[in-house]
Amino acid sequence: MNDQGTVLTDADQRIWLDSFRIENQVNDTVSVIDKWTIRGGPGDGIDVVEIDNGRLCVSVLPTRGMGLWKARCDDLLLGWDSPVNRPVHPSLVRPGESGGAGWLGGFQELLARCGLAWHGPPGTDSADGRPLTLHGRIANLPAHRVTSGIADDGRLWVRGEVDETALFGPCLRLDSTVSTTPGSNRLTILDTVTNLAGTTADFEVLYHTNIGSPLLEPGSRLAAPTRRVIPTNAHAAVDIADWNLFAPPQAGYVEQCYFLELAADADGLAMIVLHDAEARHGVALEFPIASLPCFTLWKNTVATADGYVVGIEPSTDLPNPRDFERDKGRLMRLDPGETWSTHIDLVSLTSQSEVTEALDRVAAIHPATSAHLCDSPLPEYCSAG
Amino acid sequence: MNDQGTVLTDADQRIWLDSFRIENQVNDTVSVIDKWTIRGGPGDGIDVVEIDNGRLCVSVLPTRGMGLWKARCDDLLLGWDSPVNRPVHPSLVRPGESGGAGWLGGFQELLARCGLAWHGPPGTDSADGRPLTLHGRIANLPAHRVTSGIADDGRLWVRGEVDETALFGPCLRLDSTVSTTPGSNRLTILDTVTNLAGTTADFEVLYHTNIGSPLLEPGSRLAAPTRRVIPTNAHAAVDIADWNLFAPPQAGYVEQCYFLELAADADGLAMIVLHDAEARHGVALEFPIASLPCFTLWKNTVATADGYVVGIEPSTDLPNPRDFERDKGRLMRLDPGETWSTHIDLVSLTSQSEVTEALDRVAAIHPATSAHLCDSPLPEYCSAG
Amino acid sequence: MNDQGTVLTDADQRIWLDSFRIENQVNDTVSVIDKWTIRGGPGDGIDVVEIDNGRLCVSVLPTRGMGLWKARCDDLLLGWDSPVNRPVHPSLVRPGESGGAGWLGGFQELLARCGLAWHGPPGTDSADGRPLTLHGRIANLPAHRVTSGIADDGRLWVRGEVDETALFGPCLRLDSTVSTTPGSNRLTILDTVTNLAGTTADFEVLYHTNIGSPLLEPGSRLAAPTRRVIPTNAHAAVDIADWNLFAPPQAGYVEQCYFLELAADADGLAMIVLHDAEARHGVALEFPIASLPCFTLWKNTVATADGYVVGIEPSTDLPNPRDFERDKGRLMRLDPGETWSTHIDLVSLTSQSEVTEALDRVAAIHPATSAHLCDSPLPEYCSAG
Repeated sequence: MNDQGTVLTDADQRIWLDSFRIENQVNDTVSVIDKWTIRGGPGDGIDVVEIDNGRLCVSVLPTRGMGLWKARCDDLLLGWDSPVNRPVHPSLVRPGESGGAGWLGGFQELLARCGLAWHGPPGTDSADGRPLTLHGRIANLPAHRVTSGIADDGRLWVRGEVDETALFGPCLRLDSTVSTTPGSNRLTILDTVTNLAGTTADFEVLYHTNIGSPLLEPGSRLAAPTRRVIPTNAHAAVDIADWNLFAPPQAGYVEQCYFLELAADADGLAMIVLHDAEARHGVALEFPIASLPCFTLWKNTVATADGYVVGIEPSTDLPNPRDFERDKGRLMRLDPGETWSTHIDLVSLTSQSEVTEALDRVAAIHPATSAHLCDSPLPEYCSAG
Repeated sequence: MNDQGTVLTDADQRIWLDSFRIENQVNDTVSVIDKWTIRGGPGDGIDVVEIDNGRLCVSVLPTRGMGLWKARCDDLLLGWDSPVNRPVHPSLVRPGESGGAGWLGGFQELLARCGLAWHGPPGTDSADGRPLTLHGRIANLPAHRVTSGIADDGRLWVRGEVDETALFGPCLRLDSTVSTTPGSNRLTILDTVTNLAGTTADFEVLYHTNIGSPLLEPGSRLAAPTRRVIPTNAHAAVDIADWNLFAPPQAGYVEQCYFLELAADADGLAMIVLHDAEARHGVALEFPIASLPCFTLWKNTVATADGYVVGIEPSTDLPNPRDFERDKGRLMRLDPGETWSTHIDLVSLTSQSEVTEALDRVAAIHPATSAHLCDSPLPEYCSAG
Repeated sequence: MNDQGTVLTDADQRIWLDSFRIENQVNDTVSVIDKWTIRGGPGDGIDVVEIDNGRLCVSVLPTRGMGLWKARCDDLLLGWDSPVNRPVHPSLVRPGESGGAGWLGGFQELLARCGLAWHGPPGTDSADGRPLTLHGRIANLPAHRVTSGIADDGRLWVRGEVDETALFGPCLRLDSTVSTTPGSNRLTILDTVTNLAGTTADFEVLYHTNIGSPLLEPGSRLAAPTRRVIPTNAHAAVDIADWNLFAPPQAGYVEQCYFLELAADADGLAMIVLHDAEARHGVALEFPIASLPCFTLWKNTVATADGYVVGIEPSTDLPNPRDFERDKGRLMRLDPGETWSTHIDLVSLTSQSEVTEALDRVAAIHPATSAHLCDSPLPEYCSAG
């Protein structure tokens, strides 16, 4: 019970705990960290670290690139019902198949990172001829080092290091810590990415945060401090007026994406809120726009069976082909040893007052009425426009 | 010991039994179900459920899509000696490699299902541009739920559910039960496939049942209630007269395939028999032609070292490219939630009388003499013709 | 403690030892064999067999095709710091990705075999249209049978069998034994490859032996009984004069390769030595040129972070595309059941006298002064020239 924590996995030191559990009680609040491993089925061998602060419980998957499997706060479930019904071990995900979209065979988390050397659609980077699979490698790489513990101030945390490397590169390391304080409705992701290589590297990351039922329902809405809303293609442009309103499940619905230009508060933080039709429950993301200047809203309100879901996705650049982003000057470069860091708070809103408070905060950052809605894709931003 | 059975694996309920064994004795017959896991080598992590009814013993592989690894009845071994010498974990099979034929790196079972969203040769479906790998995904997907038990009537069974899903589909579920009664020479496969998706789905399945030595030997024959025999290409057409006679192992033999149009009995069942040269031992498949209207005979009488084998393969449609089958109206479609079911009995024939009885049954369904042998491929059926 | 040893893995006999350890003391020298399994991270499930003869300790990876992970002799570490920081389970290596160079995502051993059906760059064999991934399959195939023991004469050994097979071939088996005697600075690899198929098979293998820091440093040199040095392309030709001198780490360095035509001693053995700048430490490879007639020197003196390394690589033929090697008559063919064998000694040189003795031996085989340095690639040898 200190800031060093317990080593759950250290592949280099021959440490791996088959199971691990610690509890901490402060007043009436019991906090628990519980580590176990999925056995049997397509997820066989996936390590799970569950952090329960007494109010909010989140399941982190070190074996899937430190993704967040699912969360619950009070009675509110966060996540979605993907047609991929349960976590899939990275060894059973074949990114290169299905025309480079094999990543979708393992996609079911509340939060999956896309990156680190590339994200976006499958294709070939014209700059170096490299074939790029959908959304990159990071979500299907196991952490080689995982530590976890409860700090002296009661904060619960799990930290994982994931290497995305190969000879001749790219060689990027994700160091991610997920933490929360006892009784809180907020969890914090603190990520640092380091270019381990001796040469400068391309780098991009997108936090694919996915919300389905019960928060997503007909009439659910997104509130965001939006300066400008850009439909990514003509199909999205048709419904620009309702860009932040979510439809009922509809079989055969074709996904629509919008890029949002967000404003930030005096501390540089943007906050977006997705709430249900009655604004009684919601979820918020809070993050700095300096490190995460781009944001994508992914509307995929298909049939429930097909994965009725909305993606709220802060990112370093836009989920266009990497060469497009490079051309537009949005693709990041990291020098040897250079790091990039960000932090994202995911806040569960489980009462009308919590939703209202969050919406007030969004409005205070930037009034919704001043959002400019583009009626067509902008060539500067939309490779598919 | 009831119809509910024991849960061996339930990935969603955090249940996985490392090992499991139950026995049941009725008179002098001892029945056993034994579950274990392959450790070490390329099969590391594959769960095996062995069912022994006192006469017939079959090994089912939940981790390989509920395929049947091998069987033994009395002293008769059923299966073949694949050059893939032992089961391979799905994570080590790379379907997209070898020009889309990587499936062959894991092919060694007595019965492997091909499907569910597609089977047949690698290629691209012209209707949607999807790249399709040889024989689909189902044989390399682990069951997420496995139950097993001995029913009150003594019937031994194992049941597995396997999801073949991805975001943007297809999303099909196989629910397969393999069962047998004490002292019987017959095992029954009862399969149900459900379209889990919210939209209509393509569906096709082929039961790749593979017989090598000792049943397969020079002079072994197939008996089937055949209305018509169609060679799949010119190479097969050359030997149409001997379509049901099997040659000795021959290095460099080039495979020959024949499509059979089968008749059924009053209950709608077809039965086919493969027996050795002296008709003293054999194996039969019995299945309904309503759900399995197509049948392929695969002659691959290569050198013993290369996998001397014959495939007897009932299926929903023919193992042509999927777009070809769609064009010909044979590809199945399942509406959202719709199910397809079939059952296949695999019968071991371990005496001359059992073989004779089976052959009589085949002849009673449809006399062999009335089979029409096509002397060339038919464009309606043969994409490679 | 006999020549039969202990079975650590036999996938066909249901044997797998989770751990295993034996010790043997002769006078003051304690020998140890220790088997364990990597748990957690990208190497989860890799079996490791460590052999320590009291002076030399080597780690063999049966799960990665019997590759040598790393070695230590006295205080000298052998191996390199690959950007792939630790062993990767074969199921997480995807050879077909990155344009067929996915093998590089698992490349970090002291010695990785390239082969067996092909090695060299990704491409398509024009003879049969087969797509070939970088350096073949063998390094990412788990041994199905592993035995280990200490012989009556004190020799420590581990032996593994690895099948590289698929229906329709190729079907090759590697049978590899790594052994060493107590107190020795020498380990011996004895490899036999068998064509298990019923038809003649292509076969090629290259022993990718990789040396980084501390042996590799600015001023390190290779000594070899070289008749002729052939740069593989124009870029390598530029520096032909310094072909055996190694540069300091340099970010962005572009790899250079040289093919060496080696002389052998009266027993048919060639020996090459790589030593540090002061010739105080080194490593030697000794092998028969009858079975390993080709040799590649791979200079990859990139930045330390990118994998500062030199490859010393005996092989059956050159790491050109397989069809090129076939055309030039260097590609091996194995008849059904035919075997090919070789042996390689890896010798650690941990004192100036040991280095000097080894250099004398190299010079005795063939004086360095008589090496002919080609000033440009030769079309007969260099596909990339």
